[in-house]
Amino acid sequence: MAFSNIMDSNSYQGGQQDDPLIAARGRMLGPAYRLFYERPVHLVRGQGTLLYDAEGRDYLDAYNNVASVGHCHPHVVDAVTRQLGMLNTHTRYLHEGIVDYSRRLLASMPDEIDQVMYACTGSEVNDLALRVAQTYTGATGIIITSDAYHGNTAAVTAISPSIGGAAAVGAHVRTVAPDLAGVPAAIADLQESGLGVSTLIVDTIFSSDGIYPDPSVLEPAVTAVRAAGGVFIADEVQPGFGRTGEAMWGFERHGVVPDLVTMGKPMANGLPVAAMAARSQVLDEFARGIPYFNTFGGNPVSMAAAAAVLDVIEDEKLVANALEVGTALRAELARLAGTREDIREVRGAGLYVGVEVDGRDTARRLVNAMRERRVLISVCGAHGNVLKIRPPMVFSLADVDRFCTEFEAVLAQL
Amino acid sequence: MAFSNIMDSNSYQGGQQDDPLIAARGRMLGPAYRLFYERPVHLVRGQGTLLYDAEGRDYLDAYNNVASVGHCHPHVVDAVTRQLGMLNTHTRYLHEGIVDYSRRLLASMPDEIDQVMYACTGSEVNDLALRVAQTYTGATGIIITSDAYHGNTAAVTAISPSIGGAAAVGAHVRTVAPDLAGVPAAIADLQESGLGVSTLIVDTIFSSDGIYPDPSVLEPAVTAVRAAGGVFIADEVQPGFGRTGEAMWGFERHGVVPDLVTMGKPMANGLPVAAMAARSQVLDEFARGIPYFNTFGGNPVSMAAAAAVLDVIEDEKLVANALEVGTALRAELARLAGTREDIREVRGAGLYVGVEVDGRDTARRLVNAMRERRVLISVCGAHGNVLKIRPPMVFSLADVDRFCTEFEAVLAQL
Repeated sequence: MAFSNIMDSNSYQGGQQDDPLIAARGRMLGPAYRLFYERPVHLVRGQGTLLYDAEGRDYLDAYNNVASVGHCHPHVVDAVTRQLGMLNTHTRYLHEGIVDYSRRLLASMPDEIDQVMYACTGSEVNDLALRVAQTYTGATGIIITSDAYHGNTAAVTAISPSIGGAAAVGAHVRTVAPDLAGVPAAIADLQESGLGVSTLIVDTIFSSDGIYPDPSVLEPAVTAVRAAGGVFIADEVQPGFGRTGEAMWGFERHGVVPDLVTMGKPMANGLPVAAMAARSQVLDEFARGIPYFNTFGGNPVSMAAAAAVLDVIEDEKLVANALEVGTALRAELARLAGTREDIREVRGAGLYVGVEVDGRDTARRLVNAMRERRVLISVCGAHGNVLKIRPPMVFSLADVDRFCTEFEAVLAQL
Repeated sequence: MAFSNIMDSNSYQGGQQDDPLIAARGRMLGPAYRLFYERPVHLVRGQGTLLYDAEGRDYLDAYNNVASVGHCHPHVVDAVTRQLGMLNTHTRYLHEGIVDYSRRLLASMPDEIDQVMYACTGSEVNDLALRVAQTYTGATGIIITSDAYHGNTAAVTAISPSIGGAAAVGAHVRTVAPDLAGVPAAIADLQESGLGVSTLIVDTIFSSDGIYPDPSVLEPAVTAVRAAGGVFIADEVQPGFGRTGEAMWGFERHGVVPDLVTMGKPMANGLPVAAMAARSQVLDEFARGIPYFNTFGGNPVSMAAAAAVLDVIEDEKLVANALEVGTALRAELARLAGTREDIREVRGAGLYVGVEVDGRDTARRLVNAMRERRVLISVCGAHGNVLKIRPPMVFSLADVDRFCTEFEAVLAQL
C-alpha cells in the first residue's frame, strides 16, 4: 500500500495531544484528518511564497500549488471581493463571467477542445470525466498508473491506488507503471474481460507516481487506447496552468491532444473551482442525455477568481518564470546531489520537481529537517522516496537560493 | 422520468440564439447547461432578497437558498475578504478556523453527533456519507425516496431519481414514496437480495419529492432501518441552517437523531462549503481505514465564510424569522388559493414552501408569469406540479406582500 499522496510518509496523526489545538482537532474532526510534519506547523499568514506562523517566523513555501500565483495575491483578493459584493448566483441565470472565462480558457487549448463544464473540485471533474468517457465509448474499463491519485469520491477513489489503506482499486480498473509500457497489455486484458476500454486517465506529470517528466511515453499509449475505442483524459489538476514551464498544459509537453481535460487546484488560487474541458463530440451524448447541475460550479465569484488567476499568470509571465526558475532549481539541486549515493535523481519540468532518494526513511528525515529550517516540502512516489517540490509559481531565483542553502545544510547533517 | 430537480419544468435550453450571450453559452458550455424561464434573466447585482438585471430592474428572489443570509451580505463579504488577504491553505497545517467553526457547528446539534468532516459540495458529502454508511454496516443496499436528489457524482447520481434523462437508479437502491410507508418492504427486499441495508437517506423536508413537512413519518422509518442494521443519513443540504423555522436542522422537527448529517448549499452563502457531521462510532472505521483528504475542504477562507453565516443567522435571528415570515406567507397563499380547484395544497415549514397545483402545465405557466412580474420561483415534485418557494432567509413581511400581490395578479390571469 502506497500512502504516497494521502497518508504519505509526511502525514501524521498529530501525536502532541498536549497541544490544545491538536487535541481539539483530533476530537472533533476524527482520525481521517492528518497533519504534515513530525512537528506540525501552525500558520496564520501568507504572502507570495512565504507563510508565517503565530510567532511571526517565515516559512518558504516550496509545496503548495493551490496558491499558485502566490499566497494572498492582491489581484485575486480584489476580484473576489468585488464580485462577492456584487452578485453570486448560479448558471441557471445568464451572466457574462462564465462566458468570458470560458472563452479565455478554451483559447489556451488546442482547437479540438471546444467545450467546458464547471464544478468545484478535481474529484468532481474526474468523476464527471469518467462518466462522459463511459457514455461515449459504451465501455467501462479504465487504465490508470500504478500510484495514481485522481480524487476522493467513490468513483475516483476506485482509480486512486495511492490512497492506500482499506480503499481498493475497482474491478474495472487496470494499472500500469508510469512509463505506460503496460498499456497494450492492459487494453488486451480489458477487452478479454468484456469490460472494454473507456479511457486512459493520467496526470500528465505523473505526480503521485513520483513525478516523471519524460515526454515520449504518452503519445504511443494514447494512440493504442484510441485504436481500442477508448478516450484519453488528461488530469491537469496538478500540472495544469503553466506549472510545467514549457506550456500552459502538461499534455502539450507530450504532443498529445486529449479528449477530456480536467483541472482544479490552482485554478482560482484557493477558491474551490474546477473544470472539465472536452471535445464537444465526446461530450455530446452525455450532456444531452444526463442532466448535470453543479450548484456552485461556474458561479460569478468562482469565475471572477479564476479570471484573476489567468490575469496574473499572463501579466507576471508565470509560465516563463516556472521554466526559468524550475530549471535553475533542478540544476542547483543536481549540483548539491553531486555523487551522493543517497540521492538517486533530480527530475521534473518547470516548477514541479522531484528528488528521488534511497528510501522512505531518508525522504522522511529530509522533509522534517527542511521543515525545522522553515522550508516546506513533502513526498510522493510508490515508495514514498521522492521529495515533492511544487512551490507557488511566483517562486524566484532568490527563493531557489534560500531553498538550496537549507537543503545543503540538511544534506550535510543527514 | 421526473426531471423535477434538474431538468425541471422550469429549465430551458435557451432557445433565443439571437441573444449573443445565450449563443456563446450554448456553444462553449454545451447541451448540459440549462437556463431558468422561457425568457431567461440576466442578473448583474444582488442585495438582500433582491436581484437586479442589466437594465436596473429589481427581481424579488423567492427561490435561492444558497444566498441564505441575503445576497452579498456585508458581514460575509468582509469575513471572506479579510481571510483571503491573510491566509488560505488546507487542513494539513494547524489553523484555529476549522476548530472554532467545528465547535460551533457541533454545538448546534444533538450531543450524539460529535465529529465533522469538510468538503466543498453537497454531492461530495453525500458521496462520502454513503461510503461511511457502507463501511460501518458492511451492507450496500440504500433506501431513498422516489424523487430524491442527492447530488451529481456517479455514486449519488445513482440515488437521485429526480435527475431523470438517461441517468439510472442503482441496482443496490430501493425507492419509497415520501410518506416512507414503503420502508419495511424495501428493507425486506434488500435483505432478501443479499445486499443488506446500509442506509436510509432522505432530505428532511423532501425537497425534490415535492416538499412534504409531515413530522410523523420519519421516526418509524428510521427505527425500522436501525433494526435492520442500517444507519440514517439526514440530507440537510436544503432544509438545514434554520430554513424550516422550527429548529436549526430539519431532522429536529422529526424528533430523530441521525447517524450522519450532510449539509452544503447555504453553509457559506455562496462559497463552495459542505460538511458531514457524524456520530463518531459510526465514522470511526471508515476514518481510520480509508484516507480522505479534500484540498479545499475546511480551508481558512471556507471556515471564515461559514462562521460569518452562523454569526448572521444568530445576530439577525433568522431561524425565528423563517418561522414567522414563512407562516405568514403560507397563510396568505392559502387565502389566495381559496377554493380554486387548480390549487390543491399550500404546505411547507418555515421558509420552505410548496404550492401544489393541478398539473405541470399550470406550474410552468405560473412560474413564467411570476418571472414576467419579476418574482423568481421554480418547481419541484414528481409531476413538476409543485411551486418551489425557497427564498433567502432574510425574506421579510414586506417581501411576502410583494410576492402575494404578484401571485394574486398571476392567478387572476391564469
